[in-house]
Amino acid sequence: MKKSEEIREHLNQLRKEMEREGVDTLMIPTADYHNSEYAAEYFAARKYYSGFTGSAGTLIVSKDWAGLWTDGRYWIQAEREMKDTGIALMKMAEPGVPDTGEYLEQTMKDGEVLGFDGRCVSYEEGHRLKKALKAHDVQIIAKKDLAGRAWKHRPELPCHPMFVLEEKYVGESSVSKVRRLREALGRNGARNLVITKLDDIMWLTNLRGADVDYNPVALSYAVVTPADVHLFVQPEEVSDQVRSYCGKVGITLHDYADFEAFLQEMTFDGGVSMDPGQVSYRIFSLVKKRCELADVPVIREACPIELMKAVKNATEIRNTKEIYLEDSVKVTDFIFWLTHKADLTKETELSAAQHLDHLRTEIPGFLELSFGTIAAYGANAAQMHYDPSRQTPAQLAPEGMLLVDSGGTYTRGTTDVTRTTALGPVTEEMRKSYTLTAAGNLNLLHAVFLSGCKGINLDILCREPLWETGTDYKCGTGHGIGYCLNVHEGPQSIRWRQGKNLSDAVFEPGMIISDEPGVYKAGKYGIRIETILLCTEAMKTEDGQFLQFEPLTFVPLDRNLLNPAYLTDKERKRVNDYQRQCREKLLPFIQDEEERAWLLEMTEEL
Amino acid sequence: MKKSEEIREHLNQLRKEMEREGVDTLMIPTADYHNSEYAAEYFAARKYYSGFTGSAGTLIVSKDWAGLWTDGRYWIQAEREMKDTGIALMKMAEPGVPDTGEYLEQTMKDGEVLGFDGRCVSYEEGHRLKKALKAHDVQIIAKKDLAGRAWKHRPELPCHPMFVLEEKYVGESSVSKVRRLREALGRNGARNLVITKLDDIMWLTNLRGADVDYNPVALSYAVVTPADVHLFVQPEEVSDQVRSYCGKVGITLHDYADFEAFLQEMTFDGGVSMDPGQVSYRIFSLVKKRCELADVPVIREACPIELMKAVKNATEIRNTKEIYLEDSVKVTDFIFWLTHKADLTKETELSAAQHLDHLRTEIPGFLELSFGTIAAYGANAAQMHYDPSRQTPAQLAPEGMLLVDSGGTYTRGTTDVTRTTALGPVTEEMRKSYTLTAAGNLNLLHAVFLSGCKGINLDILCREPLWETGTDYKCGTGHGIGYCLNVHEGPQSIRWRQGKNLSDAVFEPGMIISDEPGVYKAGKYGIRIETILLCTEAMKTEDGQFLQFEPLTFVPLDRNLLNPAYLTDKERKRVNDYQRQCREKLLPFIQDEEERAWLLEMTEEL
Repeated sequence: MKKSEEIREHLNQLRKEMEREGVDTLMIPTADYHNSEYAAEYFAARKYYSGFTGSAGTLIVSKDWAGLWTDGRYWIQAEREMKDTGIALMKMAEPGVPDTGEYLEQTMKDGEVLGFDGRCVSYEEGHRLKKALKAHDVQIIAKKDLAGRAWKHRPELPCHPMFVLEEKYVGESSVSKVRRLREALGRNGARNLVITKLDDIMWLTNLRGADVDYNPVALSYAVVTPADVHLFVQPEEVSDQVRSYCGKVGITLHDYADFEAFLQEMTFDGGVSMDPGQVSYRIFSLVKKRCELADVPVIREACPIELMKAVKNATEIRNTKEIYLEDSVKVTDFIFWLTHKADLTKETELSAAQHLDHLRTEIPGFLELSFGTIAAYGANAAQMHYDPSRQTPAQLAPEGMLLVDSGGTYTRGTTDVTRTTALGPVTEEMRKSYTLTAAGNLNLLHAVFLSGCKGINLDILCREPLWETGTDYKCGTGHGIGYCLNVHEGPQSIRWRQGKNLSDAVFEPGMIISDEPGVYKAGKYGIRIETILLCTEAMKTEDGQFLQFEPLTFVPLDRNLLNPAYLTDKERKRVNDYQRQCREKLLPFIQDEEERAWLLEMTEEL
Repeated sequence: MKKSEEIREHLNQLRKEMEREGVDTLMIPTADYHNSEYAAEYFAARKYYSGFTGSAGTLIVSKDWAGLWTDGRYWIQAEREMKDTGIALMKMAEPGVPDTGEYLEQTMKDGEVLGFDGRCVSYEEGHRLKKALKAHDVQIIAKKDLAGRAWKHRPELPCHPMFVLEEKYVGESSVSKVRRLREALGRNGARNLVITKLDDIMWLTNLRGADVDYNPVALSYAVVTPADVHLFVQPEEVSDQVRSYCGKVGITLHDYADFEAFLQEMTFDGGVSMDPGQVSYRIFSLVKKRCELADVPVIREACPIELMKAVKNATEIRNTKEIYLEDSVKVTDFIFWLTHKADLTKETELSAAQHLDHLRTEIPGFLELSFGTIAAYGANAAQMHYDPSRQTPAQLAPEGMLLVDSGGTYTRGTTDVTRTTALGPVTEEMRKSYTLTAAGNLNLLHAVFLSGCKGINLDILCREPLWETGTDYKCGTGHGIGYCLNVHEGPQSIRWRQGKNLSDAVFEPGMIISDEPGVYKAGKYGIRIETILLCTEAMKTEDGQFLQFEPLTFVPLDRNLLNPAYLTDKERKRVNDYQRQCREKLLPFIQDEEERAWLLEMTEEL
């Protein structure tokens, strides 16, 4: 059977299921039950019913129509993958294209029924839909997984062993974290907390898992009450060691499958805190109903763990510094190999990425990559989220630039780094773009700012050298990074525009943030320089406590791409200073004489 | 009778009035009916009942207690002025001192009555109070002016002639402004607008007045309906010329005193737009009640005029550039006089200020100062809002620095400028502070930024040179400025912290903003450099429309206070560039040979 016929058959089965349940329109988002960045195959219903394999998109199916919403990154791919399926491609954010909510409002008729799996949609989003559709007298069924029922050969729920991350790595016992969490909850007026975000649960329990791609987390739920910590995981994931650890630190284990039944029995005395942007529509609604019955408040707030997790403790910082240096050594080794050892005519983006990935596995405590390595050559690098493994990877050649964005998850921390490397001759335009990107990157690294500042205050320091030439990068400048956890975490970020759902917390010493300006010239080239920064205290004066950053990443900038003519004296000094630090930090780890000589040359004063 | 006995007698009379009306606690803020920056003597009830003459403060009087809330600028003065009156000084923002709302909540008892003049409190504030006190079953009487009734020899309501500001000055007819306003209203769903902010009314009608100190505005109210523009002013202010103009442009004149009666008769078909932060508690409540009766919506939004007014048209910009240059010439003349002609041993802060004020009166179209000139010598300049006319002005001497912040209101625009000048030897610390302040000032002036930026994005460009040395100024960096209107206007501003009630609009070409970093060292010295900027278009590229600033102020920086050792090469170039522009712009206006020579020297390359 042709692929498109397969998809049509899947949709037929789905529509039968919809008719059986009286659902007129079904919405299938791309999400697991925990709002994870990467949804496992078990949750890939959208892919099963549309054929589209991209990482973001929402499928809407009604009796006689089906459409897939996705963003500009995926339009070409989606058109190709959905050819002849009869599914319309809805280009998100294009003028005249309604978003999914608007579409449902415009097309659904009085008395009709909308279905979605309420575990795969946040309460915030589900509630917004419910309100918008109420005017049209549209009913919502969120309790049934129709897409799952009609799905033949659905993959299993991911189920990998959990493990305890020892205190020498995490620096604080789960008991202590729970104590601090309860204090934070009390301050905001709730005595119970329902947590569904996996990295929050892992941080609190000091457990880790492997159920989500690239994130060392276990599928889980947790409820913290004044007396107990209830953890819901698949029993198959729990070793004797984990079970014994949980017993010791006061974590009561339950079956992942029993979470909703447990909530139905809870009383939540003193109220419950939940994040309506994170907790699913189904779980939030269920808990809300319980609270209404018991007449206790639901405090809608960001999960207090988000901020606690973002501020790294002394042990985490010590380990993070260590692992970032070891990771930097491997990336530096990789760049040397790429520019001096590799036969580029035999390497592709993918093989180069694999070479780097392999180097990382040699680092003690390596668990997995922190995301799929992006190696983008030439014009491919102009796509910000290029993934060489999903299409025919480009052949490398001794000219132009290769952008490599990569990272690892280790027991001693999670890394993320981007360097752009000249593989041979480059144009002066490329050198100018690279040099200004480096200037912005270092301006942010050298920021000194009053305590109380947020990313929205700092962003312009990074962009100004590019903005002065009429160049912008259409993404944020920085994101937080977990400790042996997700490579993207909040609540701090660096962006100049405050988005609706984007957190933007005040900086605190101990926070980690990426610093990743870039230049992306469609059809020509792409540059990104990403260095990870640790927020630390600067001077305290009569005018207040000042903060600053220090770099965690020590991979030298590409001297072949730097032209001091585009730098102010201060910026040039900053480049030289960073290169000198890289040299001093890296040299003790590099034995190869040729590589040592290259490193000295690469980090020479401009 | 001693001053303090007088105050006690005033309070006695007030308490009798309170008893008669059954009011237990009376709140007397410092405000007129229009939330103006400067309240006229007619509105100075707080002064009459407390003796405290500062520009900000709230008096609360109950049967057996009275207290005055004011901020740190005024504590010493308030203590002196209220000595022996029995009134407690409540130091705002001091730890443990409740704010007025908290105080009322803490002290008022069930069934008591709070009184205030609902015309002198915004709806937002009044409503907040009402909500907070509801829990204590406290009733509010806002319809009676008890303070006014018990006030003997109350000054008259200000009443000065209005005039028409011709189209050659304002560049757009009132008819056209009203048309654009109605379009803006329609977009947000209201068909009527109630305006109580005086500069908004003046902008819309192209009328001006002189009823508020420093602001060329007439006491007035306005209501815009789909068919009419109703303007409420004191009939004595209306000349035949103004009356005839109003007839021609379709403005219906009413008596200022008839405003509330008029509202009582209005139907507001299609809803009404009001700004709850600007419209008084009394007026807002009255209109809200009318709308509820008629079942039409009240749209709570910033008055659309605020944004329209902020974006200056081509005529306003042309005139503004002219007047800023003429004003800059006078300030430059003043600095030359101060440093070369004046016998400093015979001059005080006040006499120097008066010298400058007199120079401004010579400029064609001068109407009044745009605020009371601040001339602060030595350590006095460390107080940000120092007013030499309110205390014994300091004697000048040929050493240290004089900070002068001043401006004028002209038919061709409103100016504002601060320069700090060395009167003789200065310390190296002063030079460093001045040089870094100049660097910040020019960094902001040279900002290139993507359309969509707000002041919160740009602020750090101005502060960074100071922050790098652990120095901060505890105020905003920039405010908007009216055209022949108030020297402080919104909705744009430049601050790094987003305050509760502070507007922070996206920058648009045509907006005017001040750029005023400073260093304030208590007990030592104060520095402020304030240059006014016009927002203009920069390049438009594939990455978007970029914006930039150009200076309107051309008063040279003090070369004696600049030390290039504290500047980067880029900053030094910017200083030289600004000085060169000042030289080129000013020279044609300066005849005096000695002053010309001094100007050349002052603006020489660093």
